[in-house]
Amino acid sequence: MENLMEKIISLSKRRGFVFPTSEIYGGFSGFYDFGPLGVLLKENIKKEWRKAVVFSHDEIVEIDSAIIQNPKTWKASGHLDGFVVEIRECQKCHRRFRVDHLEDDKCPVCQGNLGQPSFFNEMFETYVGAKKDSSAIAYLRPETAQGIFLNFKNVLNTFPKELPFGIAQIGKAFRNEVSPENFIFRIREFEQMELEYFVEPKKSEEYHQKWIEERFKWYLDIGLKKENLKIFEVPKEDLAHYSKRTVEIHYNYPFLKNFGELEGMANRTDFDLKTHSKFSKVDLSLFEPKSRKRFFPYIIEPSVGIERIFLALLLDAYSEEELNSGEKRVVLKFLPKMAPIKLAVFPLLRNKPALVEKAREVYSLLKDNFLVAWDDNDNIGKRYRRQDEIGTPWCVTIDFETLENGTVTLRDRDTTKQTRHLPQEIIKIVKEKIK
Amino acid sequence: MENLMEKIISLSKRRGFVFPTSEIYGGFSGFYDFGPLGVLLKENIKKEWRKAVVFSHDEIVEIDSAIIQNPKTWKASGHLDGFVVEIRECQKCHRRFRVDHLEDDKCPVCQGNLGQPSFFNEMFETYVGAKKDSSAIAYLRPETAQGIFLNFKNVLNTFPKELPFGIAQIGKAFRNEVSPENFIFRIREFEQMELEYFVEPKKSEEYHQKWIEERFKWYLDIGLKKENLKIFEVPKEDLAHYSKRTVEIHYNYPFLKNFGELEGMANRTDFDLKTHSKFSKVDLSLFEPKSRKRFFPYIIEPSVGIERIFLALLLDAYSEEELNSGEKRVVLKFLPKMAPIKLAVFPLLRNKPALVEKAREVYSLLKDNFLVAWDDNDNIGKRYRRQDEIGTPWCVTIDFETLENGTVTLRDRDTTKQTRHLPQEIIKIVKEKIK
Repeated sequence: MENLMEKIISLSKRRGFVFPTSEIYGGFSGFYDFGPLGVLLKENIKKEWRKAVVFSHDEIVEIDSAIIQNPKTWKASGHLDGFVVEIRECQKCHRRFRVDHLEDDKCPVCQGNLGQPSFFNEMFETYVGAKKDSSAIAYLRPETAQGIFLNFKNVLNTFPKELPFGIAQIGKAFRNEVSPENFIFRIREFEQMELEYFVEPKKSEEYHQKWIEERFKWYLDIGLKKENLKIFEVPKEDLAHYSKRTVEIHYNYPFLKNFGELEGMANRTDFDLKTHSKFSKVDLSLFEPKSRKRFFPYIIEPSVGIERIFLALLLDAYSEEELNSGEKRVVLKFLPKMAPIKLAVFPLLRNKPALVEKAREVYSLLKDNFLVAWDDNDNIGKRYRRQDEIGTPWCVTIDFETLENGTVTLRDRDTTKQTRHLPQEIIKIVKEKIK
Repeated sequence: MENLMEKIISLSKRRGFVFPTSEIYGGFSGFYDFGPLGVLLKENIKKEWRKAVVFSHDEIVEIDSAIIQNPKTWKASGHLDGFVVEIRECQKCHRRFRVDHLEDDKCPVCQGNLGQPSFFNEMFETYVGAKKDSSAIAYLRPETAQGIFLNFKNVLNTFPKELPFGIAQIGKAFRNEVSPENFIFRIREFEQMELEYFVEPKKSEEYHQKWIEERFKWYLDIGLKKENLKIFEVPKEDLAHYSKRTVEIHYNYPFLKNFGELEGMANRTDFDLKTHSKFSKVDLSLFEPKSRKRFFPYIIEPSVGIERIFLALLLDAYSEEELNSGEKRVVLKFLPKMAPIKLAVFPLLRNKPALVEKAREVYSLLKDNFLVAWDDNDNIGKRYRRQDEIGTPWCVTIDFETLENGTVTLRDRDTTKQTRHLPQEIIKIVKEKIK
């Protein structure tokens, strides 16, 4: 579709999915705010992830570690030395660019000459405590994973598990990207969902494969089209220093020539537990009673940024259709379980107290069970359009027949067909469909 | 109770509610991590807050704004100039102290002389972008509220509402406290739940009072004892510059001489919308169709840190009891809806395959409905003790009678009484109790 990203960005702002942050002060590059519908969609993403990754696995628990950790963490993890990008500054306009994003020696903005390359660490720095000197420097975490490794022993002590077992985490992470771009695709503040799955070294390849399949299936389960997803094997020469093998799930983002990263799944080996053991002098190895051996487990890590899933869901769900009436409509075809609002309730006419009263009653009944919107503005056609555009799977209209026999119309977003039901039946129908 | 805080801190770590962050690197003052049970308890707090503050109010929506906003925000809000504490440094040991926490002119640690007072801004600073100079300074938000004010117009455009209406937010905030103290009571990274409720100026006192009552009732609803709660009227001379009146809900924290702040509820007047209008040159006033007048709404703000609720819940729920058997037990008497884990399932003996198999079946049935733990270690008495200590309201044991007639024992945490039921009945009983 032409201009799909422009349409998504505009719809996101107009309907309250995503706003540029601090917009009244001109925004702030790389930072976004989530509006009322955005919060609901994000919560649905987290809920489905937790259901699949945490709650359906007896051997997995979730933790929530601090964004700011003891700075020694980042020395040990390799981020302080290695989380760097090579940049060059334009001698004329003094803009800075990532070397791996540059195509020639001239500034892509003003055509000035570029200076010598230098290195730039993408971790955000801050000072903790009342003194502002080098001893007080701390960092905003660039990934949630390290908070899991640091708590490995704490969690093992409270939830004794045999291998394999996992520790999951959802939380904000920060990367001082030199060039944030493509709406919420590359941003400086984002929210990660990570699982660190601890396994016997010799079984790491098997579990890695298992998680690749399980995670791929999850994206189909939340409604992404299979043809927009791809498995990508990261070439050996591009692997991070800790990784034995990394496989990514790629999505067909329209602003990329090819597909781009949605989720990464690395076999981190025993790198993290070993280095933290070395740096902290706390033994993070494990004694396995069966084999009577002590060793460092290997780690399989499925890791994803919520905003990339959020964007993929919007892109995948967006469609424009011509109705039989010749009218055009925009529809977000979310799966019902992912839709921010499940039902909208309309009194056919807002100036008929009997209809409004009955509609309020139905609204309140449905609201005890689902997230429900109320709309009594404009004609029914316009109200359908508004709900289609935010992906509400069903609209319920209270009309004159309702006053006679109690039935209301239930209109399906995708087929636009209407059927009549008693409100109680609608609860059952919807519960079944959002399971 | 003597040493109640020590007991809470120890239990929190031992059972996985709260860990000191980056503990293997010696921790980091003012930062904490939440373990598996802590995550569940925190999620329950958020869920109950959303239910009461957002979902049961048609006129309230929730947003999620960025932690790092355009730095002009903090000039306008007054934080850049006013979010300061007065500190003095010891000339001998160079520790720094808040003047309002000092009792005399000598260092409370080493008795050295204290230097001249100076001012210290409690906002954490960082640099955004590839340049590290004063033009790149940005701040970690010290409160979520400003993100709401900045999005006031965005939200109004997407969810047109009449006054009164509210915008809520849950999210991390950061304050570079000079002396973090009392476990998770005064910390540097915390999570806020804030509501900004926009009202006609002349009705602000009425709505303020309404929210004071509604919020106080909420604390009783989540299970805090009334005698541990108190309404505190902030004296006129202590009011923040934006506030016309602030009322706090105080909790009986054992480490304070008197009660201490749990939640604050301020009448912020039209201060915020007015100053942001002035600084941004974007008109944030509202045209009211009924009165045909344009004005800045007043704001009522109930605001609380999740960690303070978390701590109050632990303190309030903690009890030690002597059983009839003479045995002592520790119980967290959470309301069932707040308990991290609702049920634990035990096979009476782990070496009887028929019991284990049946127990697995019951476990899996209950797990489809609730958060359920499995325990087959040690004797039943010890398993009860472990569940009591983390506040699990019910334990289900599969014994030999189960194999005969299908019934299992349901043991109540508070009465320690056991009754027999079919597993299906237990679902109904528990659903009713956690409503």
